[in-house]
Amino acid sequence: MPEATLAAHGARVQARLTALIPGAEGELGRLAEAMAYAVDGGKRVRGALAIETAALCGLSQETGEMVAAAVEAFHAYSLVHDDLPAMDDDDLRRGRPTVHKAYGEDMGILVGDALQALSFEALARIDDPAVVPGGLARAVAGLAGVGGVNGMVGGQWLDLAAERGPRPADPMAHITQIQRLKTGALIRYSASVAAMLSGRDAAPLTGYADAIGLAFQIRDDLLDVEGSPEEVGKATGKDAGRGKATFVELLGPEAARAKAEALVEEAVEALAPFGEEADVLRALARFIVTRRN
Amino acid sequence: MPEATLAAHGARVQARLTALIPGAEGELGRLAEAMAYAVDGGKRVRGALAIETAALCGLSQETGEMVAAAVEAFHAYSLVHDDLPAMDDDDLRRGRPTVHKAYGEDMGILVGDALQALSFEALARIDDPAVVPGGLARAVAGLAGVGGVNGMVGGQWLDLAAERGPRPADPMAHITQIQRLKTGALIRYSASVAAMLSGRDAAPLTGYADAIGLAFQIRDDLLDVEGSPEEVGKATGKDAGRGKATFVELLGPEAARAKAEALVEEAVEALAPFGEEADVLRALARFIVTRRN
Repeated sequence: MPEATLAAHGARVQARLTALIPGAEGELGRLAEAMAYAVDGGKRVRGALAIETAALCGLSQETGEMVAAAVEAFHAYSLVHDDLPAMDDDDLRRGRPTVHKAYGEDMGILVGDALQALSFEALARIDDPAVVPGGLARAVAGLAGVGGVNGMVGGQWLDLAAERGPRPADPMAHITQIQRLKTGALIRYSASVAAMLSGRDAAPLTGYADAIGLAFQIRDDLLDVEGSPEEVGKATGKDAGRGKATFVELLGPEAARAKAEALVEEAVEALAPFGEEADVLRALARFIVTRRN
Repeated sequence: MPEATLAAHGARVQARLTALIPGAEGELGRLAEAMAYAVDGGKRVRGALAIETAALCGLSQETGEMVAAAVEAFHAYSLVHDDLPAMDDDDLRRGRPTVHKAYGEDMGILVGDALQALSFEALARIDDPAVVPGGLARAVAGLAGVGGVNGMVGGQWLDLAAERGPRPADPMAHITQIQRLKTGALIRYSASVAAMLSGRDAAPLTGYADAIGLAFQIRDDLLDVEGSPEEVGKATGKDAGRGKATFVELLGPEAARAKAEALVEEAVEALAPFGEEADVLRALARFIVTRRN
């Protein structure tokens, strides 16, 4: 069931993203084409979180889709930049060449830059009477925070620094901090931006999101060990090759799997205030720890 | 006079930027330090435009300073990324090593990314009763547009593509398009965002800004030919070395100088509706074509 819901939401997010990327000709058309390439594909977990939570918070379907486009464009920007040669130097993403492999390194930098801007544009285009005064300002400030020192950029820097430096004294605390910043912050935002816009209490949604964010990372670490590049759509076995500590290495695969499952239960319980309206979010939490890519 | 005003505005913008960059320790502190390095210095022409036009539009001084911080952080982000080895590969900026020379290429990418986010955060933090409903949305969408295909990113891509491709059939049209996107869009935004926020007519301000934006570029081209790296604070003679068409090459230095001066007169006239309240903006226009760096 969540796969079908994810696919349906994903198609709507894709249509929004396509509409947001400006039409252009000549060399500017090539830039727009590379942006479209970068946002194509993926599981759209963040977009689905945005769409489902927007509905829970009484926002319009259009608002949910615009917020979903914002977080998916932001996610795509971060992947394109993280894949660059000076960063993680990855050739494969979502089963295809990374943007810099397909279009050149300069284009990789520029596509990521333009997609970050596009995310804020998507937020600014929301037009919904259910958005409270100050709601847009909170949503914009929130996304900016995700993209800063105490979010994705900080997490990526800590991750890069860890590869070069000595092993940290407390590797579990260290990788938990990296997860919280590098991937957790955007997942939390995707699930709570609807609350910011509508002026509702974000606490149940952030509790849910923080649990699934960590479960998502543990599942990624398991797939890095157990999956094949064909199945996962990106290089696997990378973490061991780089000597990086992971949840699987520190806990062992069985305890890691058990922790991910416990986190899913925690996430499901956090949604109690919403009743059965939140069933898709519950199913999404379960999907996250069973997915194969 | 404009130098003193620029310096005073610049100091207030600097204080805002310093306050916006989060305090952090350890490796995150190094990231914050590199962000502070990137936003330090410069003429602050864009920030001065923002502060002066905010006052003309009845916005608070604090709002003017926040908008100035937003456009200066955005400008700094674009410089840091344009200087990267995969882009213009510059070693010197504002008289000091570029961010990637001082801190590494991965940090250069991340600092630019975080500064783009910080720009939107600055806009989102505006708290001013003179901002009309929908004003923030227009300001955010406007900055996002500057950072996209039809703004800085598109202009930088056209500029890079021009270095590799054959000489365009109409080089004057081509470099005018690049100027409009790569530098003109942010200058126009810096001078008109106050009108967006306050719901006023932006036409006199965009007329002024488009004229000084082009004059600014012509002056840059003249300094590239006539200035020394010590004086200008970045490498000079680059355009000829890269075989790039410039206004100075196409028009000749005398006609280029005359065109810049005519544009300043055009800019001054565009400000007629504001009377003497706009004298600082008029002086700024004149400064732009006489500056030595």
